[in-house]
Amino acid sequence: MRQTDFARFHCSLSRALDAAGDWWSPLILRDVFVGLRRFDELVRDLGLSRNILAARLEQLVDRGLVEPQTYGPHPKRFEYWLTPSGAELVVVFMAMTAWGDKFTPPTGGPAITFSHRGHHCEPAVVCRHCQSTIQLDDIEGHVGPGGRIAKGTRLMHTKLKPAQALPAHPLATSTSTTRGRI
Amino acid sequence: MRQTDFARFHCSLSRALDAAGDWWSPLILRDVFVGLRRFDELVRDLGLSRNILAARLEQLVDRGLVEPQTYGPHPKRFEYWLTPSGAELVVVFMAMTAWGDKFTPPTGGPAITFSHRGHHCEPAVVCRHCQSTIQLDDIEGHVGPGGRIAKGTRLMHTKLKPAQALPAHPLATSTSTTRGRI
Repeated sequence: MRQTDFARFHCSLSRALDAAGDWWSPLILRDVFVGLRRFDELVRDLGLSRNILAARLEQLVDRGLVEPQTYGPHPKRFEYWLTPSGAELVVVFMAMTAWGDKFTPPTGGPAITFSHRGHHCEPAVVCRHCQSTIQLDDIEGHVGPGGRIAKGTRLMHTKLKPAQALPAHPLATSTSTTRGRI
Repeated sequence: MRQTDFARFHCSLSRALDAAGDWWSPLILRDVFVGLRRFDELVRDLGLSRNILAARLEQLVDRGLVEPQTYGPHPKRFEYWLTPSGAELVVVFMAMTAWGDKFTPPTGGPAITFSHRGHHCEPAVVCRHCQSTIQLDDIEGHVGPGGRIAKGTRLMHTKLKPAQALPAHPLATSTSTTRGRI
């Protein structure tokens, strides 16, 4: 059992990690994305126990990342589908997969590659404002409006730049209206 | 203790998650990025035990994500600095933080915001080929050259498209030459 409740930390990285649940949950989301939507398919693909899978799926449903839909004549058989927030998290996992392909490559190369509207897709993390690929040396962290001196962020404010006086990103309004139900 | 060795799965998402170590390790990497580089600073900021921090730092060093550097007159005092692979992983965590800001926002808003070369930075995951923000509906997964029918990817090939015959991305060569030491 995990003893720390990362969902209570005042940092969205902690909360995003907590929403994902544990190591299995990103792989479950990956599988649901590729089309392995049924309980028995997930058990077979991942090789995890039915108990663990049931618990993880329940958590992913509770957090609004996947939705169960019944299929076939049996009312208790479910397929799992990504919600909008689940789909956006899988896109982040695509960027993490690209990192893994580069720095911890499996023997023989990637296990999965992606195409995007018919062309080869290499995910990259860019600054939405200027479209350039983010190099960490170009980034500074600033105190955010929700910053708190609390476990997980007790000293962070001492190293961050002051709160940004820069104008909000032009797309900020549109993204803030699409908050999910987590 | 985690009982499954995700580093042995033939999927770079599993291997990237395993490289990160556990929930604490992304937060340690975040802290090292913002400038909390010393053992006691990390203990105070994160509120974790010295034993756990020592184990996580050792793992992050072993996996080549951070490097210790001595400081001051005492030969056993270390500051931790991100390696190139660690810095690229933090960029992925920036995208995950943006997801958390949108879908699991802390009270009052983000705890940390980013600027990039002096302007406000909102990280986004794009297709490097066409520069558009990735919407998962536009993505298809293909069997990769390292795909294996093994735990973690036992059924995945049944749902993936055939291996891509598309030309490699123009930048693929340059990125594949910068593999790290994990």
